[in-house]
Amino acid sequence: MVALSSLQSLTSLILMNSYSSSSSSSPSPSTSSPKAFLTRRKSIFFASSVLGSFLHFYTDPAPSFQFARAEEDEFEQEEEHVVQLFQETSPSVVFIKDLELVKNPKGTNEIMSTEDGSAKVEGTGSGFIWDKTGHIVTNYHVVAKLATDTSGLQRCEVVLVDANGSNFTKEGKIIGFDPAYDLAVLKVDMEGNELIPAILGTSNDLHVGQSCFAIGNPYGYENTLTTGVVSGLGREIPSPNGKAIRGAIQTDAAINSGNSGGPLIDSYGHVIGVNTATFTRKGTGISSGVNFAIPIDTVVKIVPYLVVYGTPYTDRY
Amino acid sequence: MVALSSLQSLTSLILMNSYSSSSSSSPSPSTSSPKAFLTRRKSIFFASSVLGSFLHFYTDPAPSFQFARAEEDEFEQEEEHVVQLFQETSPSVVFIKDLELVKNPKGTNEIMSTEDGSAKVEGTGSGFIWDKTGHIVTNYHVVAKLATDTSGLQRCEVVLVDANGSNFTKEGKIIGFDPAYDLAVLKVDMEGNELIPAILGTSNDLHVGQSCFAIGNPYGYENTLTTGVVSGLGREIPSPNGKAIRGAIQTDAAINSGNSGGPLIDSYGHVIGVNTATFTRKGTGISSGVNFAIPIDTVVKIVPYLVVYGTPYTDRY
Amino acid sequence: MVALSSLQSLTSLILMNSYSSSSSSSPSPSTSSPKAFLTRRKSIFFASSVLGSFLHFYTDPAPSFQFARAEEDEFEQEEEHVVQLFQETSPSVVFIKDLELVKNPKGTNEIMSTEDGSAKVEGTGSGFIWDKTGHIVTNYHVVAKLATDTSGLQRCEVVLVDANGSNFTKEGKIIGFDPAYDLAVLKVDMEGNELIPAILGTSNDLHVGQSCFAIGNPYGYENTLTTGVVSGLGREIPSPNGKAIRGAIQTDAAINSGNSGGPLIDSYGHVIGVNTATFTRKGTGISSGVNFAIPIDTVVKIVPYLVVYGTPYTDRY
Repeated sequence: MVALSSLQSLTSLILMNSYSSSSSSSPSPSTSSPKAFLTRRKSIFFASSVLGSFLHFYTDPAPSFQFARAEEDEFEQEEEHVVQLFQETSPSVVFIKDLELVKNPKGTNEIMSTEDGSAKVEGTGSGFIWDKTGHIVTNYHVVAKLATDTSGLQRCEVVLVDANGSNFTKEGKIIGFDPAYDLAVLKVDMEGNELIPAILGTSNDLHVGQSCFAIGNPYGYENTLTTGVVSGLGREIPSPNGKAIRGAIQTDAAINSGNSGGPLIDSYGHVIGVNTATFTRKGTGISSGVNFAIPIDTVVKIVPYLVVYGTPYTDRY
Repeated sequence: MVALSSLQSLTSLILMNSYSSSSSSSPSPSTSSPKAFLTRRKSIFFASSVLGSFLHFYTDPAPSFQFARAEEDEFEQEEEHVVQLFQETSPSVVFIKDLELVKNPKGTNEIMSTEDGSAKVEGTGSGFIWDKTGHIVTNYHVVAKLATDTSGLQRCEVVLVDANGSNFTKEGKIIGFDPAYDLAVLKVDMEGNELIPAILGTSNDLHVGQSCFAIGNPYGYENTLTTGVVSGLGREIPSPNGKAIRGAIQTDAAINSGNSGGPLIDSYGHVIGVNTATFTRKGTGISSGVNFAIPIDTVVKIVPYLVVYGTPYTDRY
Repeated sequence: MVALSSLQSLTSLILMNSYSSSSSSSPSPSTSSPKAFLTRRKSIFFASSVLGSFLHFYTDPAPSFQFARAEEDEFEQEEEHVVQLFQETSPSVVFIKDLELVKNPKGTNEIMSTEDGSAKVEGTGSGFIWDKTGHIVTNYHVVAKLATDTSGLQRCEVVLVDANGSNFTKEGKIIGFDPAYDLAVLKVDMEGNELIPAILGTSNDLHVGQSCFAIGNPYGYENTLTTGVVSGLGREIPSPNGKAIRGAIQTDAAINSGNSGGPLIDSYGHVIGVNTATFTRKGTGISSGVNFAIPIDTVVKIVPYLVVYGTPYTDRY
C-alpha cells in the first residue's frame, strides 16, 4: 500500500500525439531503431490489405457455433455493428507524421523521404478527412512544429485511404490553426483520389453511458479501434495556449500517444469529438481510462474559419 | 523487449484516493494551480446542468441513422440501458474533499473555504449515500487524516446531489471507521435536502463476466462513469491496518486515483462493491485494468455497526 | 501540458510474464513478502470454489429487477453470454510459475516447494491446455529460464483445473520451444486427471471491432477475465530472438504482467491468439490499451512440430 502523496507532481494531462524526440538536434530513437521503423512501415501495408478483406465479411463462412441459444443472435448482431462501424468510418481517419528534413549539403530538400534518410519522423498523430477537397482536421499540438516553423525544415506527411480502399501518402500543407482550441487544418493534394469525409455528429445531446469509439494511430499502430463509453461531459481541458477548452467529452475508451487528432465516434458512426488528451503519469502518454476529446460542436464552429481565413475568427462571439 | 525483472519493486496495490500533498507543510499543487482548481469548480457546475438535461433524454430528436438494419435496435437498447443506469444511480454518488484548515492568526476556523484560502484540498475521493438521514459510506483511507486528526485542522467536504438534481456541498462529520475493512461512515447535515440513497445489491451471487459500472471522481473529474466486467472473485486485498480484506471483486472497469470509496454497480443499478484499489506502478494511481472493490456483503455487515456505535464490532464473529 | 519528448525512451513493447527478480542471486520480493504470497495461495483456493459455484448459476434466484423494460432482456442475455463463455473456457487456462530451486546443502532437490523454502517463484505467466495428454502451450519468454537452464535448478509449476473443477498443481516439463515465434510447449503428468483442451479458432477471418476476451493471471491473480475488441490486425511484434512475429492481433482488452501465454478468445469461446505483449512504459508491465496476441493460425503451424520434434521445423516454408 502506498500513500499517493506525490500524485499531483507525477501525473498531468498529456496531449496525445507521439513525439519521438524533443529537439530537432537530438537523434530520433524512432528512426535509429530499424526494427521499430520496420514495424510501422509494415503495418501500413497490412492496413491496406485488411481494408480490402473487409469487403468479403458477410460472405465469409461463419465459424462453427459453440453456444446454440437464442441470446447469441443479439451478441452477434452487436459485434457486427461494431465491425461495420469500423469499416465505414476508418477510411476517413488519417495518420499524420511530423517530419524534419535533414539538411542536405547539396542544397535540395524537394523530395522528403524517411527511407533515404532525407527526413526523420519527429512525432506522429491522427486526423480525419473534413471534406472531399482534401482538408484534414487534427489537433494543433500534433502539427505545432510545422505551424511555428522558422527553419523551413518541418514537413507533415499524411497517410490516407481513398474511396477504393487504397492507401496513399501525401504532404499536408498547413491551412490554419487555433491553439486556443487545439485545432488545425491541413490540406493534401488530391490528384484524382476520391476521399471519404467523416460524417459529423453533434455533441450537445450526448449522454454519459452511451457507447463511443476512438480510431487513430497509438504508438504508430495505424487504424486502431478502441471502445468505451462517454464517462463525463462538460469537462475543461487546458489548450496549448493555456486557456481552457470547455465542454470536453470524457471517455474510458483507451487513448494513447498517437491518438491525438483522431475522431471519437458514436454508435451511429458520427464524429462527436477530437481525441486530444489523457490524464496520466508525466512522460508516458499511457491511457489511464480518463481520456478527453474536444466536442464536435466546437470543432464545427472553429474549422470553417480556419479553412477560409487560415486564422481563428477571434471576435466571433 | 524488456525483461520485467524489477516488476515487484515498481508496482504495488494502490489505494485510489487522490492526495495532492504528502504533508500539511508542503504547498498543495492543486490549490497553487489556478487552472487545475478552475477545472474542478467548473465541472461541479456542469455536473448539475448535465443532470438536468437528462430529463429530456427520451424526447430528444434521435440523430439520423446511418445503419438501417434490425440489429441496431438491440445496440441502441443496450446504450439506453447504460445511460439510464447512470442517470438513476449517479445522484447517490458523492465527491469527498479532504481539507486542511490554514491556521488563522485571527483565531477563527469556523468557516472553511478553499476559495478564500482558509483551507486547502489535501486529497479527494468518492462515496455513496447510505440512507436518507445523511450517512455517507466511503473508504477509511479516503478520510484517514480526519479520522486520526489530533491538530483539529482536518475537515471533510462532501458534494452531493439532492432529489431535485441540485448540487450542494456540506461538511462531513466522521461517524465511524474500521481500518480492517477500509470502510468509514460520514454524516452530513440534511437541512431539508432530500437524498437518494444507493440501492444495495449482493455480492455472493456474482459471476465472472457480468457487466459492472464504476461511478466516482477520478483525478477530481466528478461523476465519472467507467465500464467493464467482473474479472475475478474471492480476491484478497490488503487493508490499511495490514490485514487482508477477503472476497474482493476484481474488475477491468477503469479505476483511478479519486475513485476510492465510490460504488461498483451491477447492470441492475445495485451497488455490489466499494471501489478501493488498483494494481499499478507505485506513485501513479493509474488504472492497470486490474482493479478491486470491497464486496457489498462485507460492507453491509460492517457499516450498521459504524453508524450505531461508531466503532467496529470486533467480536461479531 | 507536457510535450511527450522522451516518449520513445520511456516506453517499449513489454512481454507480459511477471518476473519477480532479475537474477537468481537476488532475493525475491515475492517470496520475501508473506502477505503477497498469502494472497496468491489464497486465490488458488478461491478459484476452485468459484468454479464450483458456477454450476448453480441458472438456478440462482434472480436479483430484483430495477428496470422493467423490454431492452433489459437483451442486456441480460449478453451478460449471460460472457459469464457462460468464461465458465466454459477458463478450465482450459493454466497458471505457470517459474521456480528456482534453492541449493540444498543436503544435496536433494527432488521435491520442490515454495512453502518449505526449497524453491522460490521467479516469475509467473499463463498458458492453455492443448490436448488431453497434458500438453500446455505458452509463450517462450514465460519459460525461457527453464528452456535455457544450465544450472539444473530451474523448474516450472503448472496450476490446472480438471474436468471435475478441481485445482491441481503439476511440474511442467519442457517439450519444445521456438523463440522466433515466442512459443513453447510444456507437458504435465496427468495421473488420471481429465483435462479440458481449449477449442481453437482461426485468426484469418477476424475483423477489427469484434469482441474478444483475455483469460490469464495478471500479477498472479488467477483466472482473470478482461474484455475488449479486436483493435487492429496484421501487426508486427518483436520476438525474443529479435525477429518479427507477423499477423499479430491488437486488442484493448487489458493485458498485464502475468497474462503472457494465456489465450485470447472470441465470442464463440474459440482461442484466436496467445496474449504476449503490451505497449507500455518500460519496467511497469501495465496495460496501455495497446496489447498484442500471436495469431492462432501461427500457433497451429508451430506447436505440432514442437510437440513431435521438440524443435522448430525451420524449413517448413
